[in-house]
Amino acid sequence: MTKRVFNFSAGPAMLPLAVLEKAAAEMTDYKGTGMSVMEMSHRSSTYQAIIDKTEADLRKLMNIPDNYKVLFLQGGASLQFAMAPMNLAKNKKIDFVDSGNWSSTALKEAKKMGMDCHVVASSQADNNTYFPDFKAEDVRKDADYLHVTSNNTIYGTKRMNLPKLSIPVVSDMSSNILSEVFDVKDYGLIYAGAQKNIGPAGVTIVIIREDLVGLVPNLPTMLDYKTHVNKGSMHNTPPTYSIYLAGLVFEHMLAQGGVPYYEKLNKEKAEIVYNAIDSSKLFKAHVKKGPDRSLMNIPFFSGNEDLDKKFIKAAEAEGLLTLKGHRNIGGMRASIYNAMPIEGCRKLAEFIAKFDKENA
Amino acid sequence: MTKRVFNFSAGPAMLPLAVLEKAAAEMTDYKGTGMSVMEMSHRSSTYQAIIDKTEADLRKLMNIPDNYKVLFLQGGASLQFAMAPMNLAKNKKIDFVDSGNWSSTALKEAKKMGMDCHVVASSQADNNTYFPDFKAEDVRKDADYLHVTSNNTIYGTKRMNLPKLSIPVVSDMSSNILSEVFDVKDYGLIYAGAQKNIGPAGVTIVIIREDLVGLVPNLPTMLDYKTHVNKGSMHNTPPTYSIYLAGLVFEHMLAQGGVPYYEKLNKEKAEIVYNAIDSSKLFKAHVKKGPDRSLMNIPFFSGNEDLDKKFIKAAEAEGLLTLKGHRNIGGMRASIYNAMPIEGCRKLAEFIAKFDKENA
Repeated sequence: MTKRVFNFSAGPAMLPLAVLEKAAAEMTDYKGTGMSVMEMSHRSSTYQAIIDKTEADLRKLMNIPDNYKVLFLQGGASLQFAMAPMNLAKNKKIDFVDSGNWSSTALKEAKKMGMDCHVVASSQADNNTYFPDFKAEDVRKDADYLHVTSNNTIYGTKRMNLPKLSIPVVSDMSSNILSEVFDVKDYGLIYAGAQKNIGPAGVTIVIIREDLVGLVPNLPTMLDYKTHVNKGSMHNTPPTYSIYLAGLVFEHMLAQGGVPYYEKLNKEKAEIVYNAIDSSKLFKAHVKKGPDRSLMNIPFFSGNEDLDKKFIKAAEAEGLLTLKGHRNIGGMRASIYNAMPIEGCRKLAEFIAKFDKENA
Repeated sequence: MTKRVFNFSAGPAMLPLAVLEKAAAEMTDYKGTGMSVMEMSHRSSTYQAIIDKTEADLRKLMNIPDNYKVLFLQGGASLQFAMAPMNLAKNKKIDFVDSGNWSSTALKEAKKMGMDCHVVASSQADNNTYFPDFKAEDVRKDADYLHVTSNNTIYGTKRMNLPKLSIPVVSDMSSNILSEVFDVKDYGLIYAGAQKNIGPAGVTIVIIREDLVGLVPNLPTMLDYKTHVNKGSMHNTPPTYSIYLAGLVFEHMLAQGGVPYYEKLNKEKAEIVYNAIDSSKLFKAHVKKGPDRSLMNIPFFSGNEDLDKKFIKAAEAEGLLTLKGHRNIGGMRASIYNAMPIEGCRKLAEFIAKFDKENA
């Protein structure tokens, strides 16, 4: 019998078991074609149907308006740190909300590219225990765009409601895309590596408002959003199998009830884990109570490194895996993306309570 | 029972059935970890062991010297068309052998980037029915490197023995890497998209001589080979599952006898198909007889579009799929990469003979 664990990895992360089982069943013969999806020409009508349905299902899930293009790219969010400035910053002027590790990596990359960067708000001085507030008037009106990281995987904060701005908002949603309902229209560009809420690492979703495509001429072909818009993500061979798996995840999500279903579930799941941490004697959450707490990533500590290690090891023995915190802040981190079952959160909460009782 | 066809796709292409079956069996639980490889943190020791073994096996297969780095990147050969000039052309001076569609796409990209490009030899005027010859003295001594495309997927020509040069040779080996024995030491940089002879689309192999790393400062982080060399291809999340599958292919290849085994087999396979074409009344090979004929891609025609269509349709009914030629030259193309069994080539040859008899 297949053994399955609760895997709290920050990404790559758990995928729905039903999706993995379907992929395994279709591995050597996709729907009677006599070949695996990964053996199939990306120019075949069978594969075109797969990528078309994947895009259509994502559009349904996120209610993506017609004037937004959906791209399946490669290179992860890290390549978007360079592609977004290259493509959108025609005046080389970008504002940033600096709310964690990835936001400051994106900022650093833009600076390296010679961009005039302005930090609108930062939580770095407080070790990012909250999401920094800002007002529309803090943002430069002549900046090409404002860059935000909607969810901070390492520090466990998030913010989806931003002040209305006159300039486009570019959001790195790698770690909370599809986790709650929001309005795509509030953004000019959304990008997300797949390996948290979408599918396997190796495909990057880019959702871009049409009028932001083609602003800067003469970019390297593969780094120009226009190339991929014009060719339906097929300028060259796309990561065909990763896109197929993302499609299976989208199909599964729609069958469960779409993003509203996951938002409700994610809120319940986060509450279960946070309640266990907040009501323990030993453990403390990194993020202040309130709406800034991420639904996806929950960092917590005992304040005692040896005790943290003991916790992580004992949890492993219970089938609760990959709870070690990121090296930037240490301690533990429970990443509970869409595919983490509520039972995993309950089991973790019970384990926190038990460990607390035995070690406090 | 699983149905399997002979798939002559130019890429993505056939993979060994044993590899697909192993991947399917390990899909929901990799070696008792309770998770799929695609759910695993790339920072876990289990995944590190996978990528380390994948690299070690590739080094064994290709006999890669210690002073060469092996990288697992994203973006395909098309992104390398930009990354190679960015990283290696410190004097912005590149020589090219223009032997087909992809060589001229690489040339075009370098020109777009403002490089001083010189074509050493070209077969374009003759519709690339051979691989163009050149001598060492045709190459500029002060060029940063010479770029070649070792195998032309569309036109079906190849060349592995080049004149000895004083400048580095950069080779796009996407469509014939691992198909025959050659000396890595003859090259400064080798790159190859995985989807022909390696694994699924979405991972690009780069093999680079150490002294060519870090020649140009201040590149965008993800486009700098140095980034990936310094971080063992783990600057950000690599395409973990695609790398794992490439690893399964490498392991399978070693068990069969390595590249010498495949070289012998590929020569037999190509001979079977070419003999059928050459001895038919109806069909004509695109490439002249001789050593320029690719072992991987065999374009051929009847000279009559309707007859070509009839052939492709009738072949499909026999389980011989994806034989349609590239739109640049039309007709048929049989791509017979490492994973195409010799039985597939025999069946195609028999079908060519039968069709020839019935329609000549």
